[in-house]
Amino acid sequence: MPKLITTQTRIADLGKPRVIIIGGGFGGLEVAKGLVGTQTQTVLFDKYNHHCFQPLLYQVATSALETSSIVFPFRKHFRNTHDFYFRLGEVTAIKPETRCIETSIGSVKYDYLVIASGAETNFYGLKDVEQNSHPMKTIIDAIKLRNIIIRNFETALLTDDKELMNSLMDFVIVGGGPTGVELAGAISELKHDIFPKDYPELEVSQMDIHIVEATPRLLNGMSEEAGTKALEYLKKMGVHVHLNTAVKSYDGHEVLMSTGEKLISRTLIWAAGVKGNPVAGLKAEAFGRSSRLLVDEFNRVKGYDNIFAIGDVALMEGVDPKFPKGHPMMAPPAQQQGELVAKNICRLINKKEMKPFRYFDKGSMATIGRNRAVVDLKAFKFQGFFAWFVWMFVHLMSLIGFRNKFFVLLSWLWSYFSFDKSNRLIIARPKDGVQ
Amino acid sequence: MPKLITTQTRIADLGKPRVIIIGGGFGGLEVAKGLVGTQTQTVLFDKYNHHCFQPLLYQVATSALETSSIVFPFRKHFRNTHDFYFRLGEVTAIKPETRCIETSIGSVKYDYLVIASGAETNFYGLKDVEQNSHPMKTIIDAIKLRNIIIRNFETALLTDDKELMNSLMDFVIVGGGPTGVELAGAISELKHDIFPKDYPELEVSQMDIHIVEATPRLLNGMSEEAGTKALEYLKKMGVHVHLNTAVKSYDGHEVLMSTGEKLISRTLIWAAGVKGNPVAGLKAEAFGRSSRLLVDEFNRVKGYDNIFAIGDVALMEGVDPKFPKGHPMMAPPAQQQGELVAKNICRLINKKEMKPFRYFDKGSMATIGRNRAVVDLKAFKFQGFFAWFVWMFVHLMSLIGFRNKFFVLLSWLWSYFSFDKSNRLIIARPKDGVQ
Repeated sequence: MPKLITTQTRIADLGKPRVIIIGGGFGGLEVAKGLVGTQTQTVLFDKYNHHCFQPLLYQVATSALETSSIVFPFRKHFRNTHDFYFRLGEVTAIKPETRCIETSIGSVKYDYLVIASGAETNFYGLKDVEQNSHPMKTIIDAIKLRNIIIRNFETALLTDDKELMNSLMDFVIVGGGPTGVELAGAISELKHDIFPKDYPELEVSQMDIHIVEATPRLLNGMSEEAGTKALEYLKKMGVHVHLNTAVKSYDGHEVLMSTGEKLISRTLIWAAGVKGNPVAGLKAEAFGRSSRLLVDEFNRVKGYDNIFAIGDVALMEGVDPKFPKGHPMMAPPAQQQGELVAKNICRLINKKEMKPFRYFDKGSMATIGRNRAVVDLKAFKFQGFFAWFVWMFVHLMSLIGFRNKFFVLLSWLWSYFSFDKSNRLIIARPKDGVQ
Repeated sequence: MPKLITTQTRIADLGKPRVIIIGGGFGGLEVAKGLVGTQTQTVLFDKYNHHCFQPLLYQVATSALETSSIVFPFRKHFRNTHDFYFRLGEVTAIKPETRCIETSIGSVKYDYLVIASGAETNFYGLKDVEQNSHPMKTIIDAIKLRNIIIRNFETALLTDDKELMNSLMDFVIVGGGPTGVELAGAISELKHDIFPKDYPELEVSQMDIHIVEATPRLLNGMSEEAGTKALEYLKKMGVHVHLNTAVKSYDGHEVLMSTGEKLISRTLIWAAGVKGNPVAGLKAEAFGRSSRLLVDEFNRVKGYDNIFAIGDVALMEGVDPKFPKGHPMMAPPAQQQGELVAKNICRLINKKEMKPFRYFDKGSMATIGRNRAVVDLKAFKFQGFFAWFVWMFVHLMSLIGFRNKFFVLLSWLWSYFSFDKSNRLIIARPKDGVQ
């Protein structure tokens, strides 16, 4: 029987400059879109065969959206384009000296390399937390969390042990950024609109949702007003917010906080931080804080002239006066850097001057359940129903593909008027447990 | 740390006759629907927290529909009903002498028991086939198959070995029943409409789809005309149909057929047969052929007065002159038996005579890709576009819940006009391989 996995990537040599993009997130996708149809050969490597719209992962985790609505197959996106190559595989190392990368499916040479491998969850060295908590970075994380939330309630039914029952019904979210705040809001909607009807045998009113945030406020990336309003909204929704509080340890049952206070919960969702997710093989001098790659104003990785890094994995320090310590790890900087890097690579090929990156800050937003959101724009800041409407519109428009936009819109309309979240499914073989 | 799984089902004693239903498929669901709100306590056990509309599994496997469109959470279905209890768990044994069942979450007593545990794939003792082939019975099977089909093509790109490449692009379906025929049609649509654009690097025209059927014709459950037309359709679509041919062995690469002929394929889909999926604990005399439970005209299991079996797991021999060897293992008999058993249990409780089962055969149908289906009704048989339209309408109407109907209809309209199947996703962690 011939062996299944070959050790060659079989990327045809087109005699054109080859640009390899590592990762098809918001940044990598823009690079690819900017390069297809130019004089380059575009090669995209990703561990998954689809782009994932991470800002809506929390809605998959809370049964509001189906998986397929927020992911988009790369090949579908780039069909009918020329000189574009997708490879499903993991990039394990970069060999700058030979201008090639090592991957799970073999090695391949590049003329230009764009590292857009994004970020991974940062547990800040808390081993027990890493082992026992649930991250929220990938579509698999979201599906697992959905399974866990529902299975917890099915299991809570089975015990007389009040402490165990509550530990299954309670949720602790660590991190008061957009992910934590949006997740807390969505879980509290489950508590108020869904679970009382689904679980008449349980006292769902006993369900507690906690947010633990180490700093004095929520939504640090946003304005004071936004943080205050988010806090007000969450309290209205019955979410317990612990500010100035860090998590010290978690054994899968007991959360020990820096205040000495303890919370009992079977489910700790870790949304407290991310770090760069770089690829091995680059010099130590190329790395900045939290595993991010130091880049110049053209997103060139420090010490290399044909290797670029963009988005969460890149750290552009001391360039943008508004962001001297680097840009926020969100979609817009990644997308804007991706667009520019595509153009700059073409300029390099044509022996033209590259253009430096200038971040256009469109502002930021977060939603906290129906009719409630906070929006910071350059010009003005607003909260409430209109903000919520703007949040929906912007996210809808940012989704790839008309079909996804259309189905997400319908799902939202449906949930809005029915107060229902229809995908409360455990999609896992029984023997898989909560996996 | 208190242990998580308790050994009690914690089903309240309501002092009412308790009816336990094992399995929430087409049959079990009808029993539950018929019993809620009566003088009984209805308890439904299932390994999953949702009902699955199995007739459309093949569309999930071929990227046409998203998972959530064909499954429906039990609790959502029965919310706002009284005296209904759902338990997520596996029933491991029946103890008729003590009128209780053993489950993965503990044991519980019943007054009446309805076994609706359905069918499982029958490999007829072919161990190597069982190990290396893919069944198509559960939503997990469908998702795995979708992952496999797409991953095969991603892997085929990577090899120069023509035999390996073809073995990844070719598919062998064993069984010419509705599942096999519908799956073959859908995979051939992938071949013609999707893969050529997604995989310009591959000669998709080289992709072969085989159906292997042991009897002289396709769709044995249906009319001669239906079988002949299905054969004609599949041939038109380029599917290789091997009639009067059985599969002898399969090592994951080479399919040996009873004709001595060999097919080379990495993917064998086993849709060749099912057998009853009963629960342990009943007397040997209760079992008929292929692990099905012998039942009388009231669906009472042979030798028991308060245990019923319905649907695929039940075998009602010598009762219906049209089906002396028992009813076909499809949804309609299960649903009709479920409805009647609910009524009959109420009659028993009220000391009334039970009514015997009379199967109303609505006919049967199968689809073979766009605009092509075969329909056998009592009165007349027809094929082609109108049949395809009827097939869609009937399946749409049979789906549970307006939302599912609505989203499936939209997905179908979308696919019809765009010639697209949008869910060609590998939803699995890279390390999970094709799982």
